[in-house]
Amino acid sequence: MNADGAAGKGAESGRKRTIDLNGDVGESFGAYRIGADEALLGIVTSANIACGFHAGDPATMRRTVRLCAERGVAIGAHPGLPDLAGFGRREMAVSPQEAYEMTVYQIGALAGFVRAEGAALRHVKPHGALYNMAAADAALAKAIAEAVYRVDGSLVLVGLAGSELVRAGEAIGLRVAGEAFADRRYRPDGTLVPRREPDALIEDAEEAAAQVLRLAAEGRAQTVCVHGDGPHALALAARVRRGLEEAGWTLSADIGC
Amino acid sequence: MNADGAAGKGAESGRKRTIDLNGDVGESFGAYRIGADEALLGIVTSANIACGFHAGDPATMRRTVRLCAERGVAIGAHPGLPDLAGFGRREMAVSPQEAYEMTVYQIGALAGFVRAEGAALRHVKPHGALYNMAAADAALAKAIAEAVYRVDGSLVLVGLAGSELVRAGEAIGLRVAGEAFADRRYRPDGTLVPRREPDALIEDAEEAAAQVLRLAAEGRAQTVCVHGDGPHALALAARVRRGLEEAGWTLSADIGC
Amino acid sequence: MNADGAAGKGAESGRKRTIDLNGDVGESFGAYRIGADEALLGIVTSANIACGFHAGDPATMRRTVRLCAERGVAIGAHPGLPDLAGFGRREMAVSPQEAYEMTVYQIGALAGFVRAEGAALRHVKPHGALYNMAAADAALAKAIAEAVYRVDGSLVLVGLAGSELVRAGEAIGLRVAGEAFADRRYRPDGTLVPRREPDALIEDAEEAAAQVLRLAAEGRAQTVCVHGDGPHALALAARVRRGLEEAGWTLSADIGC
Amino acid sequence: MNADGAAGKGAESGRKRTIDLNGDVGESFGAYRIGADEALLGIVTSANIACGFHAGDPATMRRTVRLCAERGVAIGAHPGLPDLAGFGRREMAVSPQEAYEMTVYQIGALAGFVRAEGAALRHVKPHGALYNMAAADAALAKAIAEAVYRVDGSLVLVGLAGSELVRAGEAIGLRVAGEAFADRRYRPDGTLVPRREPDALIEDAEEAAAQVLRLAAEGRAQTVCVHGDGPHALALAARVRRGLEEAGWTLSADIGC
Repeated sequence: MNADGAAGKGAESGRKRTIDLNGDVGESFGAYRIGADEALLGIVTSANIACGFHAGDPATMRRTVRLCAERGVAIGAHPGLPDLAGFGRREMAVSPQEAYEMTVYQIGALAGFVRAEGAALRHVKPHGALYNMAAADAALAKAIAEAVYRVDGSLVLVGLAGSELVRAGEAIGLRVAGEAFADRRYRPDGTLVPRREPDALIEDAEEAAAQVLRLAAEGRAQTVCVHGDGPHALALAARVRRGLEEAGWTLSADIGC
Repeated sequence: MNADGAAGKGAESGRKRTIDLNGDVGESFGAYRIGADEALLGIVTSANIACGFHAGDPATMRRTVRLCAERGVAIGAHPGLPDLAGFGRREMAVSPQEAYEMTVYQIGALAGFVRAEGAALRHVKPHGALYNMAAADAALAKAIAEAVYRVDGSLVLVGLAGSELVRAGEAIGLRVAGEAFADRRYRPDGTLVPRREPDALIEDAEEAAAQVLRLAAEGRAQTVCVHGDGPHALALAARVRRGLEEAGWTLSADIGC
Repeated sequence: MNADGAAGKGAESGRKRTIDLNGDVGESFGAYRIGADEALLGIVTSANIACGFHAGDPATMRRTVRLCAERGVAIGAHPGLPDLAGFGRREMAVSPQEAYEMTVYQIGALAGFVRAEGAALRHVKPHGALYNMAAADAALAKAIAEAVYRVDGSLVLVGLAGSELVRAGEAIGLRVAGEAFADRRYRPDGTLVPRREPDALIEDAEEAAAQVLRLAAEGRAQTVCVHGDGPHALALAARVRRGLEEAGWTLSADIGC
Repeated sequence: MNADGAAGKGAESGRKRTIDLNGDVGESFGAYRIGADEALLGIVTSANIACGFHAGDPATMRRTVRLCAERGVAIGAHPGLPDLAGFGRREMAVSPQEAYEMTVYQIGALAGFVRAEGAALRHVKPHGALYNMAAADAALAKAIAEAVYRVDGSLVLVGLAGSELVRAGEAIGLRVAGEAFADRRYRPDGTLVPRREPDALIEDAEEAAAQVLRLAAEGRAQTVCVHGDGPHALALAARVRRGLEEAGWTLSADIGC
């Protein structure tokens, strides 16, 4: 699949007017609760489930896989750096081989629960700092793509649209899905405004919905990430979904990539 | 399979004069090295690979799975309690559900590496305190058997011969293998002398080999555990293997269970 | 100090009509938030701060120590078992020596923040399963008391009133404070109704306040534990405090033990 | 203290012909053993003890503090990044505040054992990636120096000679000791040859001893790091010590900084 080409053209054809809405879930740990997973799973079409390194524990993984299966939400692994205290958001100087190994481990662990629940694993999307590093570092991206491919070549690899990770996935022969963010602001050149800048986040649901429609129409992404922390985020996510539906998009994880 | 019946009779028939020799491997962690895996894998026919909770990390797991595949040693998951500092040897009051969850997680994680290496996962053997608790606690045993069964019903469950774990495996429909120890002393009633007692361990290779021959002939176990820490243990393991071979046993993980 | 004697008599004298109200705080971890620490610190006179094993991380510890110092709440270490996923509530078969070591480590870590903030460390109260095990197991209790004593013999050791831990503290020469619970129901013989029983918890603030007044009047405890999870618990804690104040008790961590 | 000035001049005076020899110890973890601590403690005059984040656990810390106290070796904390799997050698994007917090926590934890053993804590030397990052990053260096200072202003801060960490320590008012390495090769400009380059390490004991003598004579460092992994390293360490003694240096942690 060509992230810029086929999907872009596809936006004009009937068959391709399908887009995926994804959300990060299963980030609780032990007695600690994060996220409004139940509510978010009522909005998204695919879910990225934390696998125990940056968040998530076996109990949360089991519960979340079951919840996704019940709701008909496509299940993905959300591997992160081994940094629970930092929620996987602090960059670490891991080697490509280490990135490969931690990705295989975490996909496998989640796949265990998926098999135990009789469900199916559809995709892999790295989390946080691992996601960001893999977007920019070709060697790391290649290692992660290889990990996904070797565990299961039929999985979809989700990465920042236009990133090294998406390129590495295509190069190895994986189906890929370029991701856009509903609540992050983009620069005119298509790159994200860094989080540390004051206008990095979009808090207005209307603005978010409009941005998503624009990115979708331009074929810039095959999946859109929404968040579920707090009523504000949930309202924004629901607004984005409604906007896409009203514009004639089919919301589904089956994006034909 | 009936651990006491079929295998016992089998010891007299040609088809069944097969026994498995298993060893715990892959217990290194990061910069820390434990065990003489290379040497031990030259002796055993099946290997139990630590899965990251009590020992092992993704790098060690990848390396060890590859090594087993190269050597033709059958690969098993060796899930333990989440207690790296205690090497999984300290009992923890985990609920059956928690035992289920940690078993699914760890089998899955190892299975990821097995798939990535194009190898096959054959069995699951709990480690340390989890092994001991599952030998005596029927509810815990059932939860672990269920975890193995739901991840992959074709896996062999290895547990202490005659234990609750073996019974739970049979009850759910798994193939099971009752385990005996080459270097642990047994009481006349067939139970193990507890580790805290002075004569718990057999250090003499001849005695160990003789004990294994006796247990095998009586059909008391389908797999025999040997250890690889130190030249003494390796020599004992090699002696046990030679004893079985000289007595006409076929050494193989394919024990027909 | 004699937990049954001096304090009991003290309840009749003016100088001793002082009681401590304690709460567990600092149990957040990384991105995970637990507890209403700010609100609870407005009610209690002493605080037990998690030290990183069952909950808490360095950032939370620094913030919580500072908060206690600002509010004039007495600071205590709240060491727990190394089981973040289980919140330190699962019993583990740790040896007395291991209990000693984990207690020294955690007191020391918290004391680092206390010194850095120019505050004072007043007490140590074990958490969860470690608290329960130390209440019943004399060897474990002795090891913990020894850990506290060797780090700083002027610290107060807080344990279940009448427990092995309190006895061990007295035996080694520590000041001790026997603890009662505002929201746990007691049996006629003075022992706690186990958590697993349906009537283990007191949810009615009036009943809790009445129970605390009774236990205080009888000199059965020198410190009363209240909780801060949820508005219900906070309301109960505030009611208990008001009840004690109205009955003429002075609320203070300076209980003269 | 001025790392370039006073000590340099001091090398010519009798009173100052004192140098410290330091080694990293206490890096075992649970069942895992690393290092030849007993042997190394017979050579060095000060020891840096791992504090549980990159290596070390409470049992190892207790044992190692006791060993140092028995041998009369000066005790230092060796705080590292929270990365046991990576042995604290992988850089992590921790903020200055996080570096402050993890340093306070780890110094405090070790200080707990030091008090429990009736010994004295003399210094703090960051480990691995934290050491390297603090050598080059002024904000991180300042945060670590502040952590040391606030826990105990009388501690000596050990850092790479001429680094940001040494400067930050001096700026806040700590005594500092600039460190040189016996087994690392230096460039003509005085900087270290990076580890990834083929000639980074000195393996010849004579060359190491000669380099140390030169660095000492030039007043370039107040403490010299030697290693204890393997007989080769121990022999090199012993040779370095002998070289200094034969050249008239007094080996002592009491370097008058």
